[in-house]
Amino acid sequence: MTVIRRATPADENAVWEIIGPTIRAGETYPLDRDLGKDAALRYWMDPEKETFVVDDAGELAGTYYIRPNQLGGGRHVCNCGYMTSSGYAGRGIARQMFAHSFDRARALGYRAMQFNFVVSVNERAVRLWQSLGFEIVGRLPGAFLHPTAGFVDALVMYMTL
Amino acid sequence: MTVIRRATPADENAVWEIIGPTIRAGETYPLDRDLGKDAALRYWMDPEKETFVVDDAGELAGTYYIRPNQLGGGRHVCNCGYMTSSGYAGRGIARQMFAHSFDRARALGYRAMQFNFVVSVNERAVRLWQSLGFEIVGRLPGAFLHPTAGFVDALVMYMTL
Repeated sequence: MTVIRRATPADENAVWEIIGPTIRAGETYPLDRDLGKDAALRYWMDPEKETFVVDDAGELAGTYYIRPNQLGGGRHVCNCGYMTSSGYAGRGIARQMFAHSFDRARALGYRAMQFNFVVSVNERAVRLWQSLGFEIVGRLPGAFLHPTAGFVDALVMYMTL
Repeated sequence: MTVIRRATPADENAVWEIIGPTIRAGETYPLDRDLGKDAALRYWMDPEKETFVVDDAGELAGTYYIRPNQLGGGRHVCNCGYMTSSGYAGRGIARQMFAHSFDRARALGYRAMQFNFVVSVNERAVRLWQSLGFEIVGRLPGAFLHPTAGFVDALVMYMTL
């Protein structure tokens, strides 16, 4: 039985074990592949974000953050990032995190959710977000250099809450 | 005769006199309207950006920055922000800054330039960027709360270099 709860400093090692391999793979997030543990945790658990973990009886199955995507007149749109532990792939963890983030976004008063940079060849993610109600509202030609596929498009996806 | 040169700490007061009114107006940039001088300068002259000024015989006519829009596999696309001093409006300063930034972007090896958030009702800016070769590659529905127009779309604009 999993619960989703706020990440605490005590989760840092376990969060790094999830986000480190994803960052090093360099296939889905526009982050430097050699980003170190401290910098990666500062990014993922930045105080401007609310960071959550999926806690499976003490083992972390995934982690996500929610933050305002822009400031000022753009503060009513949130942005989230989700990463699943490799040991939990294919078990609906991303979907579970999204459902939590959707509720959290509404509770925080956001009016929409935006993903700025979904790598187009990450087809599983694109299909998942579309199935959950996101629309592709933008396409950035060749904006991502994929480690094996070369220059590919990135998508801007958006959902009104 | 104006020259465009790198901003230095000695320019901070003059840069703030340009960016402060634009930020307080809250019509074009998704920044908090009450952002203070120090925070605004940290944002605009952040070491991750190269910041330039248009120097008109010692008076600043405008300022812009260039930075990578994303990290990792997204580092080859740059992002710029431009602000013109109110005393120099309508004198082609934005166009002059763009030309400089275009050359700078190519010199730095960027392959494209992206504007993440052009407020749709800022029609002069949209037309200017289109006339210079940018395409609207995304539209974010109601993503900007304009101080007088209410919720309006923001545009993602993109140009391959």
